[in-house]
Amino acid sequence: MAASYRLAELARRVGGKVRGNGDRRVEGLATLDAAGPAHLSFFTNARYRKAALATRAGALLVGKPADLGDRDLLICNEPYVALAQLLELFQAVVPAPPAGVSPRAAVSRGAKLGEGVSVGPFAVIEEGAMLGASVVVGPGTVIGRDSRIGEATELRPGVVLYPGTVIGARCLVHSGVVLGGDGFGFATVNGVHRKVPQTGRVVVGDDVEIGANTTVDRGALGETEIGSGAKLDNLVMIAHGVRVGAGSLLAAQAGIAGSTRLGPGVVMAGQSGIIGHLDIAGGTIVAAKSAVFDDTAGAGTVAGVPAVDHRNWKRAQALVRRLPELHRTVKELQQRVAELEARSTADRREDDR
Amino acid sequence: MAASYRLAELARRVGGKVRGNGDRRVEGLATLDAAGPAHLSFFTNARYRKAALATRAGALLVGKPADLGDRDLLICNEPYVALAQLLELFQAVVPAPPAGVSPRAAVSRGAKLGEGVSVGPFAVIEEGAMLGASVVVGPGTVIGRDSRIGEATELRPGVVLYPGTVIGARCLVHSGVVLGGDGFGFATVNGVHRKVPQTGRVVVGDDVEIGANTTVDRGALGETEIGSGAKLDNLVMIAHGVRVGAGSLLAAQAGIAGSTRLGPGVVMAGQSGIIGHLDIAGGTIVAAKSAVFDDTAGAGTVAGVPAVDHRNWKRAQALVRRLPELHRTVKELQQRVAELEARSTADRREDDR
Amino acid sequence: MAASYRLAELARRVGGKVRGNGDRRVEGLATLDAAGPAHLSFFTNARYRKAALATRAGALLVGKPADLGDRDLLICNEPYVALAQLLELFQAVVPAPPAGVSPRAAVSRGAKLGEGVSVGPFAVIEEGAMLGASVVVGPGTVIGRDSRIGEATELRPGVVLYPGTVIGARCLVHSGVVLGGDGFGFATVNGVHRKVPQTGRVVVGDDVEIGANTTVDRGALGETEIGSGAKLDNLVMIAHGVRVGAGSLLAAQAGIAGSTRLGPGVVMAGQSGIIGHLDIAGGTIVAAKSAVFDDTAGAGTVAGVPAVDHRNWKRAQALVRRLPELHRTVKELQQRVAELEARSTADRREDDR
Repeated sequence: MAASYRLAELARRVGGKVRGNGDRRVEGLATLDAAGPAHLSFFTNARYRKAALATRAGALLVGKPADLGDRDLLICNEPYVALAQLLELFQAVVPAPPAGVSPRAAVSRGAKLGEGVSVGPFAVIEEGAMLGASVVVGPGTVIGRDSRIGEATELRPGVVLYPGTVIGARCLVHSGVVLGGDGFGFATVNGVHRKVPQTGRVVVGDDVEIGANTTVDRGALGETEIGSGAKLDNLVMIAHGVRVGAGSLLAAQAGIAGSTRLGPGVVMAGQSGIIGHLDIAGGTIVAAKSAVFDDTAGAGTVAGVPAVDHRNWKRAQALVRRLPELHRTVKELQQRVAELEARSTADRREDDR
Repeated sequence: MAASYRLAELARRVGGKVRGNGDRRVEGLATLDAAGPAHLSFFTNARYRKAALATRAGALLVGKPADLGDRDLLICNEPYVALAQLLELFQAVVPAPPAGVSPRAAVSRGAKLGEGVSVGPFAVIEEGAMLGASVVVGPGTVIGRDSRIGEATELRPGVVLYPGTVIGARCLVHSGVVLGGDGFGFATVNGVHRKVPQTGRVVVGDDVEIGANTTVDRGALGETEIGSGAKLDNLVMIAHGVRVGAGSLLAAQAGIAGSTRLGPGVVMAGQSGIIGHLDIAGGTIVAAKSAVFDDTAGAGTVAGVPAVDHRNWKRAQALVRRLPELHRTVKELQQRVAELEARSTADRREDDR
Repeated sequence: MAASYRLAELARRVGGKVRGNGDRRVEGLATLDAAGPAHLSFFTNARYRKAALATRAGALLVGKPADLGDRDLLICNEPYVALAQLLELFQAVVPAPPAGVSPRAAVSRGAKLGEGVSVGPFAVIEEGAMLGASVVVGPGTVIGRDSRIGEATELRPGVVLYPGTVIGARCLVHSGVVLGGDGFGFATVNGVHRKVPQTGRVVVGDDVEIGANTTVDRGALGETEIGSGAKLDNLVMIAHGVRVGAGSLLAAQAGIAGSTRLGPGVVMAGQSGIIGHLDIAGGTIVAAKSAVFDDTAGAGTVAGVPAVDHRNWKRAQALVRRLPELHRTVKELQQRVAELEARSTADRREDDR
């Protein structure tokens, strides 16, 4: 990273302010632990105050003025956005793979490739596939027949698109992703599971990112849809006929069962799940490790198994932890009531005397 | 889809009855939302009544006569089975890959390929592997040495079989599946984990389907078995030495730890798990997101962590939700008892006077 | 398996003792169910007593003298370690793949390969990659530019290393593993998720094993680290910036969210999870299906969602199961208190008379 910028210049680029020495030269970004005097680091999570006080970083990106000694600060209202911009600025420029088809790839004559497409070795592009301009196909990636891929979308090594898959523009699909595998549909008669043919397809919008080894199944009849701007992490499972709303964020190992539909901007935290045939309102947030068994009516956070309003879940969990105490209290009450009963009976007997 | 059938003809093929116009021409199947007048759609889940009333479909497949206005109905006792049949009838015929070995595949001279085998580009078939007639090996799929694959089994692109894997006939193995990886076995001495060699193998029966990116580990010593007719969804994990009973259904992201044995027809819903060394009775159903920590004695549904009879789980969950109320009740009881105690003491004192 | 050993000879090799006939010839190892008279089997888990009594095995490996009739026993203090040694001894010797680069691999001229490296067909090794002596690269595996791999490490078929990945010596990476994919980092402004460039890398220590289809993401800025001697099972997810301590054991489908740091020797059971930005003390054990939402202070087992000390969790779960009973008790108490109140009021009224 030969690039070097004055701190004031960085502030100008990200719309922030400098507190301290705007002439300080910054040669790169680094984590609090790893940074040296020529680095800009960042402090945006209060958990890391100790590390921020101990860092050797020359300057710190922060969301608001903070008491961090004499350090030079770059203050931005949206520090995470500024970080994204700065990373783009400083990032070691990885040369894009050269345009052109590797002589070791297997591209069907009936496939159509746009301008500037790059195809790596051992990639397979079947009959009828159409790739927009500047699409990048990694080594070993397989694009099934009649698939369509929008411009500037990148498929990393080892992706598999089943026939008929549609992907929009500017998407990023990581290694090991499988789009368009058969949905899990069987009609069971006398214990024998007859396959229900899965004749639909997967349709992915624009600006979608899909993490490593995630799977999205084709619809049985109709489409499985990933809305534009949605981001899926690794090892996520999207079943047949699901619709993921635009701009949704699905963290690692989340799963959605068949035919469930998510409104826009749904967030699923890690290892959460949603059963089939539900309607999940836009803006719903599903907490980590939770499972949604019912429709959600509006934006809001749900947690637990089955998932309920997260405040109710927290309250119930706290009370579960207090169950031993509650049992003791009830036992004690039983004794006191028994004593009162005994006393009352004795008193009455005495009165009767 | 150029095919077109009279509704009465479709009824005859699936053993159903028509209510309405048996001469109506049906050109294809479609979901309730997507269907037009030339389509047959289906209404088998009460959740979709609204969509069924609004659909533009010319006819509807139903399980029993339903009040859906004047629409033409195709009524079948087993509508989901009928749907499977109709999808097979109408499905756009995807041409099977041509028989023959791609010149770009790497097939060992010591491998034996049955008649009509199809091997895609960049597939690898190692020494000693035996493939039955009509086996399909997708692009980039790797078949380890001495593996055996039964006739008409299909391996989609990017499957890996470790050496010695055995698969029966008519199976369908989706992309990214890994069969025969090492089990997770270590002998720990003084904090160092020594690998326990995994010398067994994976044996898959006939008519098994395995979903994308699922993994099945080889036995440490002996076999990991997937019984005939079992269906595994995507991202499922089967550990070493497990036996999955015939006709079992394991939904996405389910996992089974080492040496556990499932009887026939076990159902695991999504994201459920079973710990190691258990005996799970045939017909056991494990609810979504549940974890089984003990043997199950007979068919029946279990739920929760640890999993118990699902009715008990439901009752307990309902009572957990009512814990705030219970706490209030107990607090109130404490006050009332305290008052009674005070009264009783006061009364006695009065009596003593 | 032509090898055959006297039982006394096996005892000498694993530092154990024979009870019975030391001259018995052992030709191989087998599970209790599968063993015959020429086999040594093992009985180390009390669950399998019935099978141990029924086995046809000629001899049994045990941890301590056991009442198993007249069988010949090989008694070892650490039977599981002995089993590892014996499996190595008897294991059908799988010939290592021959050294050399397959003519069907795509190895960049700018890559450096140590002595005795083996590269399978359709593997890709990009510019600047450095492979130590005796590294094995399976068919179809992709090694991104500038990656470094220590000596004797094996990558099975279909592994993907993103550019810049570092792996130590003697590691074993199973099929479908993806190391170095982008972390899940987005800066959201007005509902649009802007990608935070992921510019770090993955660094794996020595003697690490990584199971099939597991994914480890690169750091956003800085490294994701897998400590030496750690073992990861299949379908595990390690997010960006995580540090997994040396010698940790992560069972299948476990997941760790971003920036969390594990001390040495942490154990995560199957389907467990840890949220981001936590410090997990060395020696912490996370029970199956649990989710850790807070730092752990020291070694010890945690369980539940959120995870707490496992004894507290067990107690709470037992009490949850007893909730129906508790509700009945409280209801009954309410009645008894109401009666006492009625009586007391009646008594007072009587007294007033």
